[in-house]
Amino acid sequence: MAEEFRPDINDVREAHRLIAPYIHRTPVLTSRSLNEIAGASLFFKCENFQRTGSFKMRGATNAVFSLSEAEASRGVVTPSSGNHGAALALAARIRGIAAWVVMPNNAPNVKRQAVEAYGGKVTLCEPTIRSRQETAAAVQAQTGAVLIHPYDNDKIIAGQGTATLELMEEIPDLDVVIAPVSGGGLLSGTSIAAKGLRPQIRVVGGEPKNADDAFQSLRAGHIVPLDHSDTIADGLRASLAPRTFAILSRNVDEVSLVAESEIVAAMQLIWGRMKIVVEPSGAVSAAPALNRRIGADGKRIGIILSGGNVDLGSLPFS
Amino acid sequence: MAEEFRPDINDVREAHRLIAPYIHRTPVLTSRSLNEIAGASLFFKCENFQRTGSFKMRGATNAVFSLSEAEASRGVVTPSSGNHGAALALAARIRGIAAWVVMPNNAPNVKRQAVEAYGGKVTLCEPTIRSRQETAAAVQAQTGAVLIHPYDNDKIIAGQGTATLELMEEIPDLDVVIAPVSGGGLLSGTSIAAKGLRPQIRVVGGEPKNADDAFQSLRAGHIVPLDHSDTIADGLRASLAPRTFAILSRNVDEVSLVAESEIVAAMQLIWGRMKIVVEPSGAVSAAPALNRRIGADGKRIGIILSGGNVDLGSLPFS
Repeated sequence: MAEEFRPDINDVREAHRLIAPYIHRTPVLTSRSLNEIAGASLFFKCENFQRTGSFKMRGATNAVFSLSEAEASRGVVTPSSGNHGAALALAARIRGIAAWVVMPNNAPNVKRQAVEAYGGKVTLCEPTIRSRQETAAAVQAQTGAVLIHPYDNDKIIAGQGTATLELMEEIPDLDVVIAPVSGGGLLSGTSIAAKGLRPQIRVVGGEPKNADDAFQSLRAGHIVPLDHSDTIADGLRASLAPRTFAILSRNVDEVSLVAESEIVAAMQLIWGRMKIVVEPSGAVSAAPALNRRIGADGKRIGIILSGGNVDLGSLPFS
Repeated sequence: MAEEFRPDINDVREAHRLIAPYIHRTPVLTSRSLNEIAGASLFFKCENFQRTGSFKMRGATNAVFSLSEAEASRGVVTPSSGNHGAALALAARIRGIAAWVVMPNNAPNVKRQAVEAYGGKVTLCEPTIRSRQETAAAVQAQTGAVLIHPYDNDKIIAGQGTATLELMEEIPDLDVVIAPVSGGGLLSGTSIAAKGLRPQIRVVGGEPKNADDAFQSLRAGHIVPLDHSDTIADGLRASLAPRTFAILSRNVDEVSLVAESEIVAAMQLIWGRMKIVVEPSGAVSAAPALNRRIGADGKRIGIILSGGNVDLGSLPFS
């Protein structure tokens, strides 16, 4: 098929040129002891050190800075109770425009404060999908703000791919790259960058067994919505969108499922050995390698550590 | 006085040449939000990323690799229940010699396992200073091993100074440098490197208020032993030795005392904002800057984060 398939590696490169002044170029860390455990060479792309504490800053900045002056002047809006909301608020502040973040009224106070600290205007809604959508639509109608979906958006996807672009500038000869999958924005961008730079690379998604809709969807060949999830990886509770489903269907070689106990064990290894703070979603991308579950013995594996935003007051270690 | 004063900056440089192949050159990190809190520019030298998880690897490696072949062949011994023991074990293993570590029989299992994982031979003693010394002396007598004191040793002190040497290669124009003080090995080495490279720099020690023997000793002009300590900073419960007292008396401009609640608050800021794992002793060196207590508004402050070895199962956050 000769149809145009977007976004592609050039969109990721363009995104990187656009956002580079506003984001951190995060380090790539390695660990002797984790390499021994994995029986492979691991290269951790540390988006926990990204501004706002997660990779979401990349996509949000690309989306905000891709708006025309006229669009931008009306501000942006998104429904998000997590990292995307905080990132969109900061990206908007950097561009000097308004950002409305629609959050459920039962969201933890600390998340609300994070959005407000970056200058976002929080609009509360009921904790239902319907109320989220209606409230976001109402804000749009009142303000004219542009809706920036957390992952069903080409600019977001291209922006998230810049983490892998940077990783593979430093480590070009990776055999495998792993990213966590939820709505699929990060894994889509990761796969586009990785296969664009190195077609023979294997792209693996890490997904909680307790929220395995991407695994089910790719196996079924159509989107299987997530009707229930109960995972510590609170960043990974969304379902694929048509756009991310199409990209993942084409680019992803395997989705590796991770049990809850394996998420905690991977977090503990990363915190304890690497001395860095990563959120459960970050550990989900490391777990398939640490458990030697992806047939990559002796290989060079890139791992996207998605973020480091955790509540230090309620950690899962005992 | 024209007397020779050792170790000096040249000893630190020599130590660095000797140990560089065996240690990590740790990164220097910065944080926008911590700079705002401190009202100054902070440069964190991240010894939590050092091999064995603390700066102790520097001094131990310098001490072990400074031994003659004849001395080395008999092995090394030290009394230590903490980071020095693990570091000495690894340094000895790298050189291919034996290391005996004398630990109290009530030391946590995890610490014993760390020493053994690096190839150290653990010898248990009663949890008293007298039993430690007697047991170490007995091991020496039996084996001929060379005693490597954790801080009352010129090679150890010069080795610990290499962290500041690296820091100031990257950030030469520091106004202040802060390190935690316990037995005084790290602060001695820090002060020798800092004043040797930049005589006008201010050298500050951070010390828990609940273990303030260095503060008391420098004020009194003689060593005031620590008769009691009750601090979360379990790496900072030793007392100065004559050698470190002499160096600190000459080089240190101020010892800044830190309350227990301030140690926890500084840890929480560093973990939460910088996304790195530091032990309480590391937070002790950051707290004086974060609390704006050292008259360094707008200045450039180097902070030695001493290590990252913590028990993830019992963290002080709530």
